[in-house]
Amino acid sequence: MFKNILIIGCGMIGSSILRGALSQKICKRIYVFEKNVNHRNQIKKINKKIFLLKKIDKKITNMDFVVISTPMSEYEKIIVKLNNFLSKKTLITDVGSTRNNVAKLIKKKLSKNLNWIMSHPISGSEASGPKFGNKNLFKNKLCILINHKKDNPFEKKLSRFWIKLGSKVLFMNEQEHDKIFSVTSHLPHLVAYNLIKTAQDFEKNNKKKIIKYSAGGLRDFSRIAASNEIMWRDIFFNNSKNLSKVVDLFIKNLNDFKLDINKKRNSKLLRKLKKSKQVRKQILLLKQDVKKPDFGREN
Amino acid sequence: MFKNILIIGCGMIGSSILRGALSQKICKRIYVFEKNVNHRNQIKKINKKIFLLKKIDKKITNMDFVVISTPMSEYEKIIVKLNNFLSKKTLITDVGSTRNNVAKLIKKKLSKNLNWIMSHPISGSEASGPKFGNKNLFKNKLCILINHKKDNPFEKKLSRFWIKLGSKVLFMNEQEHDKIFSVTSHLPHLVAYNLIKTAQDFEKNNKKKIIKYSAGGLRDFSRIAASNEIMWRDIFFNNSKNLSKVVDLFIKNLNDFKLDINKKRNSKLLRKLKKSKQVRKQILLLKQDVKKPDFGREN
Repeated sequence: MFKNILIIGCGMIGSSILRGALSQKICKRIYVFEKNVNHRNQIKKINKKIFLLKKIDKKITNMDFVVISTPMSEYEKIIVKLNNFLSKKTLITDVGSTRNNVAKLIKKKLSKNLNWIMSHPISGSEASGPKFGNKNLFKNKLCILINHKKDNPFEKKLSRFWIKLGSKVLFMNEQEHDKIFSVTSHLPHLVAYNLIKTAQDFEKNNKKKIIKYSAGGLRDFSRIAASNEIMWRDIFFNNSKNLSKVVDLFIKNLNDFKLDINKKRNSKLLRKLKKSKQVRKQILLLKQDVKKPDFGREN
Repeated sequence: MFKNILIIGCGMIGSSILRGALSQKICKRIYVFEKNVNHRNQIKKINKKIFLLKKIDKKITNMDFVVISTPMSEYEKIIVKLNNFLSKKTLITDVGSTRNNVAKLIKKKLSKNLNWIMSHPISGSEASGPKFGNKNLFKNKLCILINHKKDNPFEKKLSRFWIKLGSKVLFMNEQEHDKIFSVTSHLPHLVAYNLIKTAQDFEKNNKKKIIKYSAGGLRDFSRIAASNEIMWRDIFFNNSKNLSKVVDLFIKNLNDFKLDINKKRNSKLLRKLKKSKQVRKQILLLKQDVKKPDFGREN
C-alpha cells in the first residue's frame, strides 16, 4: 500500500499504528522518529526491521506516508521540518483528539503544497508508552477523518489505511468534531480527574484515608484519570470553549439533582435514573461495550 | 454454621449470598422470600433444595439467620413481620448501602429483644435480578459491619459468615460509614447519572445523535448509570446530607478546572492531572483493579 512510512512520536498510539502496519504488511519500510530514549529501546524490541531516525532531516524526503502521533503541543516544531523536507507527493496525517486548533495551525504554518489530512482514531487506554501498544487497538473502532473533499486520492488512501487497521471510517468537519467529542470524550475525562481530586480533597479535609473503601465507581474513574497528562492538557486547552459550555450544563444538572435528593422528589428522581439506562442500551447495541455484568475486572 | 437461613429479597445481591451459602455449605436449609414472580422462577432453577416462602409468617420462627437484601425502602414493612415472628435467638442482618437511616429505623421500630447487626458488602454490579447473581461476588471484597461491640457472639458469627463468602470484614460506626461512602461510592454514581443526562441534554439541544461517538470514558460511565434505580433512589435520599457536601466540593473543583483551562494555567493544570495518578496507584496496590491497560472490555 505504501513504500515508506514514517511515524513521528511513537508512544502507545504511535506504536499501535506501527504494530498494526507491520502485521497488515502495509508498507515496505517503516521509519520511526521518537525523542524518548527509553521508548526508543522499547521500539527496537518490537521488530528488527524498524528504522529508527535520529533526527527529522532530508532522509524523510522519500516518505510517501507520515503519521504524527506526538502530543499536539509538538506540532508547530514538527511542521517546520515537514515544510523543509517534504513535497506534495507525501500524505501526512496525525491522530490528535481536537481538530479545530490543528486545522488553524495547518492553515497558518504548513506549506501550501503539502497534504495533511487529519485523523482521529476513537480508541485509547490509560496506559502510556510504546510497550503498551496493541496491533488491535483500532479494530472495530471509529476513526474520524476531517474535511471530506470528494475525489481526493489522498483521502481515499488514508481511509483505506485505517480500514486495513480494522477501523470504521467516518467524515466530519473540525467544528462538528470538537463539539461532539467535548461531550463524549473530553467531559468524561475532565469529570474523572475532578472526581478523583474531590476524593483527595476529602481525605485531606477529614484527615481520613478513604481510597481503600473505593467501590466499582471510583475504581473506573481512577482508571480514566490515570491517562497521559500532556495529551490531556493539550486537549483541555484546545477545546476549552466547547468544554466550558458542557461543564456548565453538567453543573446545572448536578445542582438540580442535589435539589431532587434534598427535597425527596421521588417520581422526578426515578424518571431521571431510569432514563439514563437508554444510553447504556444504545452503547450495547453499538457494541461499544459487552453486556456481561462487570463484577470487577479480575472476575 | 447455621441450621436455617432466610433470605428476604433475592435479586442480584440476595442470590449471590444464596449461591455463596450453598457453595460453602453454610447451612442445612435455605429459605427465600421474594415477591417478584419472574425472580422466583429464576431462583427455583438455581438449586432444587431452596424453600421458597409465599409469605413472611410464623414459618420463619425457626430461622437462626435472616439476611434482608431488598431495597431499603422495604425495610419498615419487613420489620413489622420480624417483630411478630422472630425472637432473640435469631441473627438478623441486611446489606443496605447507607447505614445511618437504618440504624435509626432499627432503634425506632425493631423490638428491643431482636438482634440486627448491619452489614455492607462493598461489591455489586450494574446488573439487577437473581439470574446475575454470582457466588464469588464477595470474594476478596470488603464487608463493613456496623457497631462493633466486643464479645458479641452474634457479631462474631456474622463476621465468620462473610469471611466464608470470601470477604474481608471491617468495623465502623454508621456515621463514619455514610460519610466515607458518600465519596467513594455514592458520588461516583451520582456523577455518572448526571454525566449521562448531560449527554442526553446535549443531543436534545443540538438535535444531534452523539452516543455512537462515545469513547472509553462515556462507556464506563454508562455502565455505572445503568444500576438499579430503586436501590440508588434509596441511597441518594438516605445519604443526601453527606452527598450535598461532597457535590458542592466537586462543583467547586469543576469551576476551578474550567478557569484553569480557559486561562491556560499550564503548570497548575499539569500538577492536578499528575496528582490524580496517585489514587490509581493506591487502587492497584490494594488490588481493587488490575494493572493491565483497558482497551475496551472485549479485547
